[in-house]
Amino acid sequence: MPDLDALKKDLEGIAIEDNPALVRQKSRDFYWYSPVLKDQLDKVVGDMVVTPKDEAEVIRVLKAAYAHGVPVTARGGGTGNYGQCMPLSGGIILNMLQMNAIKEIAPGRVLAQAGIITADLDRICKEKSGQELRFHPSTTGTATLGGFVAGGSGGVGSIHWGGLRELGNILKLRIVTMEAEPRVIELEGWDLHKVSHAYGTNGIITEVEMPLAPAYDWVDVIVGYDDYMDAVRFADNLAQRDGVLLKELAVINAPAPFDYFTRHRPFLKEGQAIVVLMVAPHSMGPLEAFIAQRKGDLRFRSDKVESMKGIPHAYELAWNHTTLRALKLDTNITYLQVQYGSPDHVAKVELMEKLTGADMIGHLEFMRFNGTIQCAGLPLVRYTTPEKLEALIRLHEENGCPIFNPHRYTLEEGGMKQTDTVQLAFKQETDPKGLLNPGKMIAWENPDFDFTAGKNYLFPGLAALEG
Amino acid sequence: MPDLDALKKDLEGIAIEDNPALVRQKSRDFYWYSPVLKDQLDKVVGDMVVTPKDEAEVIRVLKAAYAHGVPVTARGGGTGNYGQCMPLSGGIILNMLQMNAIKEIAPGRVLAQAGIITADLDRICKEKSGQELRFHPSTTGTATLGGFVAGGSGGVGSIHWGGLRELGNILKLRIVTMEAEPRVIELEGWDLHKVSHAYGTNGIITEVEMPLAPAYDWVDVIVGYDDYMDAVRFADNLAQRDGVLLKELAVINAPAPFDYFTRHRPFLKEGQAIVVLMVAPHSMGPLEAFIAQRKGDLRFRSDKVESMKGIPHAYELAWNHTTLRALKLDTNITYLQVQYGSPDHVAKVELMEKLTGADMIGHLEFMRFNGTIQCAGLPLVRYTTPEKLEALIRLHEENGCPIFNPHRYTLEEGGMKQTDTVQLAFKQETDPKGLLNPGKMIAWENPDFDFTAGKNYLFPGLAALEG
Ligand SMILES: Cc1cc2nc3c(=O)[nH]c(=O)nc-3n(C[C@H](O)[C@H](O)[C@H](O)COP(=O)(O)OP(=O)(O)OC[C@H]3O[C@@H](n4cnc5c(N)ncnc54)[C@H](O)[C@@H]3O)c2cc1C
Ligand SMILES: Cc1cc2nc3c(=O)[nH]c(=O)nc-3n(C[C@H](O)[C@H](O)[C@H](O)COP(=O)(O)OP(=O)(O)OC[C@H]3O[C@@H](n4cnc5c(N)ncnc54)[C@H](O)[C@@H]3O)c2cc1C
Repeated sequence: MPDLDALKKDLEGIAIEDNPALVRQKSRDFYWYSPVLKDQLDKVVGDMVVTPKDEAEVIRVLKAAYAHGVPVTARGGGTGNYGQCMPLSGGIILNMLQMNAIKEIAPGRVLAQAGIITADLDRICKEKSGQELRFHPSTTGTATLGGFVAGGSGGVGSIHWGGLRELGNILKLRIVTMEAEPRVIELEGWDLHKVSHAYGTNGIITEVEMPLAPAYDWVDVIVGYDDYMDAVRFADNLAQRDGVLLKELAVINAPAPFDYFTRHRPFLKEGQAIVVLMVAPHSMGPLEAFIAQRKGDLRFRSDKVESMKGIPHAYELAWNHTTLRALKLDTNITYLQVQYGSPDHVAKVELMEKLTGADMIGHLEFMRFNGTIQCAGLPLVRYTTPEKLEALIRLHEENGCPIFNPHRYTLEEGGMKQTDTVQLAFKQETDPKGLLNPGKMIAWENPDFDFTAGKNYLFPGLAALEG
Repeated sequence: MPDLDALKKDLEGIAIEDNPALVRQKSRDFYWYSPVLKDQLDKVVGDMVVTPKDEAEVIRVLKAAYAHGVPVTARGGGTGNYGQCMPLSGGIILNMLQMNAIKEIAPGRVLAQAGIITADLDRICKEKSGQELRFHPSTTGTATLGGFVAGGSGGVGSIHWGGLRELGNILKLRIVTMEAEPRVIELEGWDLHKVSHAYGTNGIITEVEMPLAPAYDWVDVIVGYDDYMDAVRFADNLAQRDGVLLKELAVINAPAPFDYFTRHRPFLKEGQAIVVLMVAPHSMGPLEAFIAQRKGDLRFRSDKVESMKGIPHAYELAWNHTTLRALKLDTNITYLQVQYGSPDHVAKVELMEKLTGADMIGHLEFMRFNGTIQCAGLPLVRYTTPEKLEALIRLHEENGCPIFNPHRYTLEEGGMKQTDTVQLAFKQETDPKGLLNPGKMIAWENPDFDFTAGKNYLFPGLAALEG
């Protein structure tokens, strides 16, 4: 048992919160999205929330935690939805929200502390330079830049720029290591992969340099189609129009839009699938020409409504927000994450639509991937049992559609289902005691785990909680 | 015979030049690029150069020319290289260079008169708003915006945005018709195709609205490879990295770079194929990582040379400038325009490289096309006879690589080898007497011409010149 009182003493001068209710609150994220994770993680709780105000304090925290053998789990906005920032072994929740300064804005790039909320970053960059992030998560109003880099994958803008994993979409990361004498390391180029999307298991990110794109007054647009596949083909064809500048392109099948997008309901037609778009104002004319040619039903455009008061942004209908809106009204809903790889992504969508029928409501996010267009599916699923969910996952995989399982809390099971040797090797250097966000990297916890055996990993610490 | 004196009287107050030497000079473009066109068009000459200073003067010129039955051929910078702006039936050369005002710059777009030089437009847009055209021809220093829209296809920036034909890459055109009472028509959306790339045969463009992109201090980069196909694969893979922001991506095989790029020679290695790049400063780091991974030989980067004085821009090594530099030193060189369609464009390049051997020096421009990457070939060809050139063209076509023949002065033969019914129909409305740039649209001159018969079109007016 680590000596938490001694630890606190070492942290004197740094903001610490140990009120159980507050600690419990900061020990959770959107894990409850998944009925599976809700069962598994409900009892997870940390010991205290520590809020560093600068990198020097991060170093002090990690040094002290290392000395006392106390786990540290970074927390940004806590908007992850696989329990990424939940402290499976207790210990310190490192709240990054006070480290929210912008250090430099230049043409094409910004350098900021990791705890800045991405919407704040975008607002300030736009005010000061007419620029904004290339893409942001749909949770931009509450998510942090560091949390996005450590836990996210892409989002609003990925239709133009691809995802976070693409070379050039993160420029630099500055991290602090979990050692007797914590080191500060700067990573660029291919080395960024060591830490990006590693859930903070091998370093605490203190600063992030990101590329910027021009900020426009993006127009929200909704186009309706009676037939889902017509909407999908519209979106796919539009995604290939390189001259039409989009920031968002999603397709959501009926009945989700009319049933769940309550604020937009006055604009929607029951029974229609919709295409949700964000388009640059100077591409709105060309987009109208395209919609007319494809006989789309232009239901909504934010530049022509009397007031946007009370109407959410288009991106708050997309990505995981689609699921969130469904969940609010129907607690039996959950979802999957599907990759429909190009070039036959549309055919794959059509096939899975046929095979799954009423079990799933289609939701696609179009994005660039390796120089072509493909789509990521975030279908809504009517949840009954874990077994039926597993069967649905297998059905996808058997038909050439990989699943990134959002019902798993480990890096590997939610991702490529294999060890990321680069991240593992880096953890050996930066976190020799394995104190950073324990339980999330199977390759570290159990090097012999057999990913092909078809069994789920259960972190021993969690098993203890159950006992 | 039209009464030119009466015409001149009608044009009183408008600048007219009829000095034969000056008229002759303004009757030519870069047609001499093609040994075939050089023979055919050498004697072409107009009757006078008329230089309108505004749209009202354009209207007066067209009205008078219509009344007197005098042909009118618009001329921008005269940098076309298929004789596009050469007055095959004589008449008025309408010099657009005085109509060079910018009317509005807004986020994402600019409205300007058609005669503005694109480099001037870019400089002013950058100064005033940090923006520039999405792409420009490599002749940007002397080409006009209207000439680009009416005669060009794409260029420096098409690696990101695709070509001019893509919806959204031209926003609006304002034209004057050739009728008893000339009309002013504004075109948007799909209607733009009526006039874009129509060589000024169905309307004189007076104003152009174009989308803008952010202007960066693009870094010129040259990467060398001993093997051409290694360079091609490097470029193709890089083109698919959606996070690395490029403005130019070309591959040029040995011996062209070392032999013809004299100002860059100190940086080049004899025998190497090169990749010519323009990259945004904030993507330079990621590009370096990519070059290192692919074992490229980084020969040149403009951000690290002591002075760029006397060294041309990277884009002046690319597009048709590659050919220009070769021609300057070896008059036996000519070229072709090849489409290597995706997704097997690299395989096609490799095949044609094998089949053509020493007859061709490979030159590829990578660009986006319908949402994917493909490459346009502008190979240098050692010219011997028209027959051998034809055989080389057939060899490409037989192997699935369409040729856009740069040795033809008609729209159809240089393009899709079929009637563009939209442009033809629009000409019926806007130029009922067929006085705008005669001889360039076969479908107008000879509706019965059989494109499949394998014969070249000869404009009767030209035959008369020979006689
Ligand atoms: C409604 C909804 C919509 C969403 N939409 C998207 C979307 O469009 N795109 C997308 O990619 N994701 C999306 N997500 C997931 C999540 O919101 C984003 O990935 C978000 O960027 C996470 O940021 P955060 O600050 O909330 O991170 P947190 O949830 O706080 O943390 C995420 C992970 O990063 C680690 N971490 C946080 N800060 C640091 C740091 N400074 N150093 C090291 N590790 C750190 C945490 O330990 C955790 O493992 C969505 C989630 C919800 C609930
Ligand atoms: C070295 C070299 C490099 C080149 N690189 C490129 C390149 O990268 N990309 C590319 O697309 N092209 C390229 N070209 C071709 C040409 O330079 C461009 O298309 C250029 O944009 C033409 O502009 P211009 O003003 O010189 O047009 P001009 O040559 O003057 O005219 C071109 C055509 O447009 C018509 N026209 C001109 N103005 C108007 C108007 N206001 N209204 C109606 N019709 C009009 C003319 O009648 C003619 O048919 C290159 C040529 C050379 C010689």
